[in-house]
Formats: sequence, structure tokens, C-alpha cells
Amino acid sequence: MLKKIIFGNPFETEAVVQKIPDSQTLKDLSEIKNAFSKGGILASAFPGIDITKLEPEETVLSIPLSKEDMIFGLGEAMGSINKRGRVYEMWCSDDPNHTEDKKALYGAHPFFIVYSPERRVQAAFFIDFPGKIIIDAGFTSRDVLEIKVQNNNFNLYYINTENLEIKETVQTFRKLIGESYVPPFWAYGYMQSRWGYGTQKDLETVYEEHTKRGIPLDAIFLDIDYMKNFRDFTVDPEKFSDFSGCVSALKKKNIHIVPIIDAGIKADEEKDDVCVDGVKKDMFCKKADGSLFKAGVWPGLSVFTDYLNPDARKWFGNYYSRLTDAGIDGFWNDMNEPALFFTPEGINRVKAEVEKTFSGDLKEFTSMWGVKEAVLHVQNSMDDYKSFYHKVPAELAGDLKEKTIEENGKEYALVRHDKVHNLYGASMTRAASDFFKNNVKDRKILLFSRASFIGSHRYGGIWTGDNASWWSHILLCLKQLPSLNMCGYLYTGCDTGGFGGNVNRELLMRFISLSVFTPLFRNHSAAGTREQEVYRFEDADDFKALISFRYRIIPYLSKEFEKCAVDGTMLFRPLAFDYLEDEIASGIEDQLMFGSSLMIAPVYTENARGRAVYIPETMEEIRCTKENGLISGSPLKRTLEKGMHYISCAPDEIVFFKKAGEKLMVSKSALNTSELDLEHLEQW
Amino acid sequence: MLKKIIFGNPFETEAVVQKIPDSQTLKDLSEIKNAFSKGGILASAFPGIDITKLEPEETVLSIPLSKEDMIFGLGEAMGSINKRGRVYEMWCSDDPNHTEDKKALYGAHPFFIVYSPERRVQAAFFIDFPGKIIIDAGFTSRDVLEIKVQNNNFNLYYINTENLEIKETVQTFRKLIGESYVPPFWAYGYMQSRWGYGTQKDLETVYEEHTKRGIPLDAIFLDIDYMKNFRDFTVDPEKFSDFSGCVSALKKKNIHIVPIIDAGIKADEEKDDVCVDGVKKDMFCKKADGSLFKAGVWPGLSVFTDYLNPDARKWFGNYYSRLTDAGIDGFWNDMNEPALFFTPEGINRVKAEVEKTFSGDLKEFTSMWGVKEAVLHVQNSMDDYKSFYHKVPAELAGDLKEKTIEENGKEYALVRHDKVHNLYGASMTRAASDFFKNNVKDRKILLFSRASFIGSHRYGGIWTGDNASWWSHILLCLKQLPSLNMCGYLYTGCDTGGFGGNVNRELLMRFISLSVFTPLFRNHSAAGTREQEVYRFEDADDFKALISFRYRIIPYLSKEFEKCAVDGTMLFRPLAFDYLEDEIASGIEDQLMFGSSLMIAPVYTENARGRAVYIPETMEEIRCTKENGLISGSPLKRTLEKGMHYISCAPDEIVFFKKAGEKLMVSKSALNTSELDLEHLEQW
Repeated sequence: MLKKIIFGNPFETEAVVQKIPDSQTLKDLSEIKNAFSKGGILASAFPGIDITKLEPEETVLSIPLSKEDMIFGLGEAMGSINKRGRVYEMWCSDDPNHTEDKKALYGAHPFFIVYSPERRVQAAFFIDFPGKIIIDAGFTSRDVLEIKVQNNNFNLYYINTENLEIKETVQTFRKLIGESYVPPFWAYGYMQSRWGYGTQKDLETVYEEHTKRGIPLDAIFLDIDYMKNFRDFTVDPEKFSDFSGCVSALKKKNIHIVPIIDAGIKADEEKDDVCVDGVKKDMFCKKADGSLFKAGVWPGLSVFTDYLNPDARKWFGNYYSRLTDAGIDGFWNDMNEPALFFTPEGINRVKAEVEKTFSGDLKEFTSMWGVKEAVLHVQNSMDDYKSFYHKVPAELAGDLKEKTIEENGKEYALVRHDKVHNLYGASMTRAASDFFKNNVKDRKILLFSRASFIGSHRYGGIWTGDNASWWSHILLCLKQLPSLNMCGYLYTGCDTGGFGGNVNRELLMRFISLSVFTPLFRNHSAAGTREQEVYRFEDADDFKALISFRYRIIPYLSKEFEKCAVDGTMLFRPLAFDYLEDEIASGIEDQLMFGSSLMIAPVYTENARGRAVYIPETMEEIRCTKENGLISGSPLKRTLEKGMHYISCAPDEIVFFKKAGEKLMVSKSALNTSELDLEHLEQW
Repeated sequence: MLKKIIFGNPFETEAVVQKIPDSQTLKDLSEIKNAFSKGGILASAFPGIDITKLEPEETVLSIPLSKEDMIFGLGEAMGSINKRGRVYEMWCSDDPNHTEDKKALYGAHPFFIVYSPERRVQAAFFIDFPGKIIIDAGFTSRDVLEIKVQNNNFNLYYINTENLEIKETVQTFRKLIGESYVPPFWAYGYMQSRWGYGTQKDLETVYEEHTKRGIPLDAIFLDIDYMKNFRDFTVDPEKFSDFSGCVSALKKKNIHIVPIIDAGIKADEEKDDVCVDGVKKDMFCKKADGSLFKAGVWPGLSVFTDYLNPDARKWFGNYYSRLTDAGIDGFWNDMNEPALFFTPEGINRVKAEVEKTFSGDLKEFTSMWGVKEAVLHVQNSMDDYKSFYHKVPAELAGDLKEKTIEENGKEYALVRHDKVHNLYGASMTRAASDFFKNNVKDRKILLFSRASFIGSHRYGGIWTGDNASWWSHILLCLKQLPSLNMCGYLYTGCDTGGFGGNVNRELLMRFISLSVFTPLFRNHSAAGTREQEVYRFEDADDFKALISFRYRIIPYLSKEFEKCAVDGTMLFRPLAFDYLEDEIASGIEDQLMFGSSLMIAPVYTENARGRAVYIPETMEEIRCTKENGLISGSPLKRTLEKGMHYISCAPDEIVFFKKAGEKLMVSKSALNTSELDLEHLEQW
């Protein structure tokens, strides 16, 4: 049973593609109360559900939890696979410090399933609202799941599925939101990136250092450094004397160059042609007084395309042609939460605090607190997010609009950014995707984004943002994968090796040993951190072996991926979804089912020689070593019975598990996806 | 073989209590080079060791590592039990954000053991130097352990132990540094603390809320709030109309009140009698120009007792009488790294940066970086640590002295703080300990500290500082315990439930399930975080049961503790120390041997129903539930054979393991240590 319940007059996010005939609009308080009272649409299916607050700025839904109830979903959130016990905020956030207490990351994915093993029922909820939602999943009160929507106007999609498996509930949701983006085949290859690669020479060096060691490679990424002063849709001619020549020379070697595109456009109304044109055509977000909203990001003070406006999406998307015309066939969209380093208004707030502080006697323990707070909050400030507006077709805005205006005979609504914040990055990805779909016919384009909202899985993938070279971030990625898959993000993965901080050799190897299984497999790191290309470390042969394994498994990975994209199924599943009745399996948080036949259990602790692995049914252990299976030949195999096992796994081995009787078809390894022989597969 | 090698003319830290006849002084470069060359004192025992840099500000020792070599020790450092693969800084640091990449916490413990399973040798090193030491344990180069001492004058103690077990090497070291502090018996009880308890009413409430629910309790802590304006050795009369009356009334109920003492003294040369007297007697640290060094901490601008000066230690120690005279029998010394919120000089650095920034056009992405950096670095700045001096008896200072002065016929040396930084907190603890030893004869005093250096384990315990309500910090504490024990800290534990951030019920229960085994068992949390007393959460009976178990095991805990303190053995040992030949056991990082007979393996992940546990030899599983063993009665027992097992463990259970054939004697549970019946123990 899939129902749509319309609270008030919602903003149309276009997250959903399926028409729901069985919908119910709740316009006033009494209707809403009724829906939750005995016999109401929600209460009948999930007893105890209630609405506990309905005030202009907040609607609170409360769902009672039994002791053993589990919660799955929420996409890119921190925390465990079972989301119970924490508070989550749906709010696209640029925060590179992914400590375990963070409530929000880059994507906002308000879809989750409550499963009650005691009552054998499950219910799935998608809160289709683009502003902030706070989900207290049994944190404050152990037995209550509380959903706080910061508005009264939103769509609630509700799947009540007494007779479905959790996997089927996911499929029902995925059907609702449409098929997942599928990347070009080469994007399953190994990709090397670093904030810092800025010149033709950098690209050539990266290519050569891999190739001369026999390390496979399919793509090299360009971070902001390739641009002229970090301006979108420019290439610095001092760094690239012939950009398209360089791109095509590398493409002849089957190396794809993937540049970054940032959300902000340099605020230069004299010399930046994109800015000039956008101002002329009214494509940028504005403040209440009608002036341009400006904030400091990489190019300096910048303006922000109003991606929520279809005209602006089309206008912005067209600029990608400057790079596709140069032969580019892959992009990553970044800084699109949007990240704001500061605004002039924010700096004024700091100035005021500084003046206040420095006029005092500076003798109290609190003396520097105000300044510190002001300085730390100048970045990504809610004050700034509340200070600008989107101009959207009036029919989309619902009651979220501030006012309506007429332009060229069309009615537009002005909507304050914070109310639709979570759609911003998703709409930027959509702008690019629409352009590629309509204008680039000769090739499939790789596209992934940092920010996202439910629905943007149709336009591109996402990566999990600015993680760190922390051991705990291997496990974080593992836990994010199934939740992201539930929300349709199949082309995803983390920055292998960690973006921030300094990696060591072993940590990079263990990161890779998870990433060989993730569709997006990119080694990426921040400027100022230790150089992280695999050839910077001792014994490059070990890395060659691990990455070669990736290419052997691409036939399985790509085939399973493409099936999942169409079927709405998950490439990575918690063991709970496949072995729900198994008390141990359903609580496992550090292993995943991978495709239809396999299970992975990577090592994520330092100096480890192996780890404990739970085998939920008779399986084959497949052990690939440098001699057996990673690069060539067959792996070592043995059968493991159901139960907890210690599985040794050195950093230069990859060990995974296959359900008994299933066939795994692998290819010979290759230095590039273009060289993979998909015709002659080997059975493991 | 224990050797002392004297590099140059070191500062006498008094970390070591044992006289080493077999010592060798290396005065000049050629002598030092010889010690490392073939046939030299170090090279003969540990081939390949070398000195790679010897410059005035740095001595670099380099030790080659084989692939499987393990490194143990380093006390309170972050990271795993096997310390290999990271960089550590020996630098007492007030940093409450214990992410896994932090190089230094509150204590500095430059003792470590290198064990080579391949070559079957081990070597232990204690770098007795009170300034900064950087230890790169195979991070930069996988196969090199590099020790960078930021000076040329230090003592190196070296234990080469081909024929000893690792445990025996630890004992050799512990004999060198003297017996561990043993707390009063009541300090093995459950203790409740919170930054915020400030009044008599607070204490009474905490007592009553525990007692009425039958939750055992032995002590309540006072954080800075009990003082008058945060001034050491004061009690705010508005909060306590009769402090000693309150203390004695609670002591009649066997509740001990444990106040905090901070390192800084309010810089108030007119009205603060401690400050006035200290200035008169020259007891505070001074800057190069002879003026008082002042920095902002809790009381506002403060001065800092020169604890490295024996006269100042004695002077400061005497002030504890103001509280011991009021009946107090426990203290915690805090902020003694020393933590510095800011100095007037530091604020001037911020001002300069602010002026520079705000005179610019603020249009670049870097516009706010300088201000942010300046503001963040105003706290605990190296510039400030380099700006003040200690006055120590000249014979202690070695070549670390800046200059010598004569006062009252005695020669003193002035030593810049950063060169002896790591001794500061340790010396504060020593000041208190010396006072109690010499002046409080009627009772044993509980004493523990935040900052520490090797040797201060003789004066008191330490807690592991400002951790957070993070799941990973349960495991962090577990990993710190054996390393702290190696350095003599037996009376130790973490802030149960986490100091910073917000706990939930389950996390608090799992924290408690580790802390029931740690000698220091204190629930403590920061102001502004969620209230963390166990009675704030649903079903207090569950907490009552877990804490009651603690009291049942105190006979074992206290007996084993006191044996370890005298014998120089470890209460908590890595499995590697007991089962070195077992490939699996020696790599286990989430279980510990506890005393002579037991093994613990607490659950440290959320929503878990149990965990994998490696049983290294035939053991009995002892399962205590609310009905069986936690409060009364006998636990459920079964025998487990060597191997990896899944062990279920609900949050309201405690499961641990006992070597087959060993006897575990437990008592009946009690509401207070004073009520424990130690005469009639029960055998489990």
C-alpha cells in the first residue's frame, strides 16, 4: 500500500515521478488530526502514530517504537545502518569534519523504513519537503521516533507493507522516485584525483606513474585548479596551452579527464561573461531588496545561479558545452549545498562582535568566546541562507512562497532559500543532466555531485563528500552504501584514502579494499595533505594487485549495477535485508551483501591481520592474493558454514564471500576498462 | 639489561626513582655517533638503530622495523594498542576534540616497547625529556620508527630483553619509575560528577536520586562551580552556607565530596589572598622581563604557580588544607597542561590580524582565513608557552637553562616553559600529593589529574580527559587502559557516558559496561550537554543493576589493583601480552585481560545485540543479568573453547570471561563501598 498524504499546500520538489491516485489532502488541523486518530489513514496502518505539534514553523509526527524496532534509510546520514538512537537533520551541509555526532552531511534524504521484528510490520515514510527536517530516532526518548518538519506544507508518502520484505518496500519507493543514473562504462574503472592537479603536466605525470607500474587507470580528475582564478567554465591557458588537445591525447590512451564545476559564479559584472549574461537574464538568486545575493567561495565573491528556476537550469546547463566541446565526458558538481565561506553581511556580524569584544577589558574567561563563535559561524550561516530567494514557476511553490510576481506573462513565486535549501544541489545536477541528455548525443557523460536530495539519483551519482584519512571512515562508507542505495544512489563511493588529513600506506590499502567493490572508485585528497597517489608508497605492486582485482570484478559489478538501476533494487544490502530472521545477521553493521551472490567484509582497523566475519548461510570464502586471483589466476577457495569465523586478511589480500551454488563471472584483469575482455569470462 | 644513556646534560625530571649504575654519558657528537655504530651500546642490542640528526633543537633516533614488528606503550596516546602506523606528539594538550587523528592528549608518556615477532626480540625505550618529542611509528615510512627529541639533552633508558616476556619488560620499567598510587577504598565505588553541580542542594539531590532508586554511590564531584568566581581554594558562601557541615553530613551517609582544583590562580594582586601571597613569595611563573605571566582561564586573567620549583610546590600544596580542613578527602587537579584560553599578547595577535583583514577588500576566498586561524590559535598557543619561565634549583636544570640566578644563597636556573612543558601538570599533582603525605595523617586522599608525565603515577591517578559521548570513545578508553597501565597509571578511567556531546540511554549503558571494570568509575559530563545522571533515563533499574555489579566485583578489582601497584604489573593487558604466540589473540584490539583471571570484551557499537569475541584458551563465559548475578544470585555460566565466538550481550547484561580453573571471588552487592561485606565472599 502506497499512499500520498498532502499536508497543506506543498512545494513541488519533483522528487517523485510516479502518479499516486490514492492521495489525500489534509488542509486544516482537524483533517490532519483525524488522519492520525483511530481509524485515520495513518493510524490504521501503524498504531500509535500521532501528530504532536502543528504550528506554522513546525509539524511534529510521533511514532512509538517497540524495544527491538529498527530504522533503515536516510541516505547519506552518519551513524549506523540501523539508524535508531540518534538525531538526524535533513539539511545539505558542507562540513568536512565527519565526526560521529554530526547530524547532517551533504545530501538530504528523508526516506526511512521502520521495521518491527516483534510485531512483524514495517512502514516506510518519505517526507517530501525541501527545507529542514529533524528526525529524532529514539535519541531523546528511547521509544519514540519524532519527525519535525519545519513547515506545515509537505507531502508524506507512506508505504505500509505487512506482507512485503524490506527489499520489496525499497523497490516500491524506488519505483516512486524513478530509475537510477547509470554511468558510462569507463566510470567503473579506477580514477585518480587530487585537489591540486592543475596543469597538463600534472595529468601526464599521473598517467605515466600509473602506467609504468602497470597500475590500471581510467580517469584523472581536475579539482578547482584547472580554472582561471577558479571561475566556472574557464580553463587557465597558462596551465593548459591546448586543453582540448590534452584531453584528446589522453582519451586516445583511454584516460578520461573529469573537471569540477562549482555552484558559484564569480561576481564580476564587468569581465566575467557568465556573470554578465546571467545578470542580464536574471538567472541569479537575489536578496529581499532585489539586489544580487553574493557570498565568498573559491572565485572570491560570487553569485549563485537560481537552479530551482527551470530557465536558469537550462541557461547554466548550456555552459557545460564549453567543456564537452573540448572533448570532456565527465563532471563532478561541487560546493552545491551551497557552501558559503562568508557573506559581506556575515563579515559585518564578525566586525560588530570584534568591536564589542575589543572595547571590553578582556579579563574574563569568556573574553574571546563571542569572537570565536562569530568567526566560526561566518561560514554556511543560517542567517545567510535566510537572506536570499528563488524565483520559481508559481505552480510549483505551494504555500512556501513569500510573494508572487509576473514576468513576461508568467507567474513566478519568490521562495526564501532556507525553505527549499535541500533542492539546490540536486537542481544543479539536474541542470547538467538535462543539458547532456538534450545536447550531447555522441557519448554518455559521467556526472556526480556532492549535494543531493531524493530524486537527484536520476540525474547523476554522488560521492560521500569530504571524508578524512581516518580508519573509522572506511566503516562509515560501508554503512552509508546501503542507505544510499535505498534512496536510489547506486553510482556512489567515498574518497578512497580519505580527503582530509594524512593517509598512511596501510590505511590507503584498506580503503581500496572496500572501494574495489563500490561503483565510484576514486582516490581523492585535499591540497596540503600527504600525497596520496598509490605510487607514492612503498611496494606499488601491492596497489597494482588490489586495483587489478577491481577490473576483474567489473563484469559482475556493472551487470548487477545496471540490473539494480532498472529494477529499483540495491547493490549493497544490510545482512538484515537478506537474513531478517537471523538474530545475529540482522544486527551485523560491518558486512554487506553485494549484488545477488556476494558478501563483503572488509578490514577497517589498523595493524589488523584479519577480522571476525559472520557467515549467515553456507558460503564460499574467496581469497585473492597477489599470486592467486588479484591479477591473474584463480583465488583460493574454501567452504564456510554458518557462524562466526575469524578470517585472516592481510592488506595485500582481498577476501570476500559467495553464496554456495552461485556463479561469479570475472574477467581477466586489464589496465583500462577499454581493454576488458567481456566476451571470455572465467567462472569463480 | 637496563641501561641509562645520558645525552648531553639533561634536565632532571625525577621521573625515575631507581639508581642505574650502568649508565653512560654521551657528551659530544662523536661519542653519540659511536654509541650507535657497530659495537656501540645501542647498536649491539638492537641492530640498525641509528642517530640521523643531531642539531641543537632536535635529536633524531631511527629504528628500523620489520614487517610484523609491533609497538606498545605511549600511555594516554590516541590510536590502537599496537601503536604502529601513526605519529604521536609527547605534549600535554588541552584539546577536547578526540578525533582519531589527534597526535597528543593531556598526558605525555614517552615509554614504548618494540616487539619483533620475526626476530623474537624486544626493546623498550623511555625518553626522559620533559619537552616535545615526536614519535613517527612507521607512519611516514612503513619500516622506520623515528623519535624526534626537540633537544640534545635528555636521558634515554633502554631495556633490551631478549629473554623476558613483554609483561616482564613492563615490570622492569615500572620498577624504574616506582610504585603506583593506590586510592582510598571508597574510590573504587561509583562516582557521579557534572560540570554544573555548584550548590549544597545539587549534592543532596544527586545523593537522593540515586539512593531512592537503590543505585549505589560513593562520591559526588564538584567542578569549578563550587568556587567563588572560579578562584582556587574558595567556596562560594552563597552556594554553600556551611560547606564543612554539608561535607560531613554527606560523609555520614558515606558519600565523599571531591572538588576540583585548577592550575591557575586569579591574577588579583589586591584581593585574592593566594595571589597576593604568591606574588610576595615569588611563586608564579614569569616572563623574560620579570613580570608575571598571565593568561585567561576560568577565573579570568590568572597567574600560574611554578610547580617545578620545590618551594612553590610546597607553598601551593599547603592551600589544599583549606579543603581538607573542611573534611574533604578527594581532589581532581584540572587545567594543568596548563590550558590557556588566551593571553593579552595572544589577543594582540588577533587584533593585528583583524585589522589587517578588515582593511582589505574582503573579496577573496581566503578573506576570512587569517582571522579564523588567529582566533583558533589564541588558545594553548606555542607562542605563549615560549613566553614564560620556571625557576628551578640549578642542579636540576642541566643544559636546558636560559640563565642562572642566585637568591638567598641558592643557585636557581631559569628554564623556558616549552622545554619542560610536560612536567607542569605532573608537578601540580606532586604538590598536592606531597602535602597529603606530610600533613593529612588521618585519611587516605583520592587524587587524580588531567595532565601527567611519566612518574606522576606515584602521586595520583589520571582520568583520560574531556572525551565525548561517542561510541568510538568506549573503544578508545579500552585501548588506552593497557598503555596507561604500562606507564604505571592504574587508577584511571574515562568520563563514563562521555564529557562533551549528548549521550543516549544505550550509549551510557555501554559506557558503564566498560567502566564497571575500570578502577576510576565516574559519570561526568560538560555543562550544556544532556543531563547524564543515570536516573535521567528510562528504566533506572537497568542502571541500578549494572552499577550494583561493580560493587560485587570490587573485591577482585581492588585486590588485583593493589597487587599490580606493588608488583609493577598491569591490571589491563592486551591479549598480545598473555598470548603472544597466538596469531589471532596478539592482534586483538577490542578485548583486554583484566587482572590475573579474567578477560573483558565490552560491546562498543550502537544497536548491537552482541559482538564477536575471541577466546584465546578454554574459558568460562560469565553472563550476569538482572535476575542472575548483576544484583544478586549467581551468573549464567558456560564453557567456551578457543576460537572466535558470537557472544550476545544486551545493554542490561554484563558478560565477561574467566580462565578455566581460576577462582573469582565476589561479594554481595551493596549501596556503598562501606557496606561491602568483604568477609563473606562468594565464588563464581
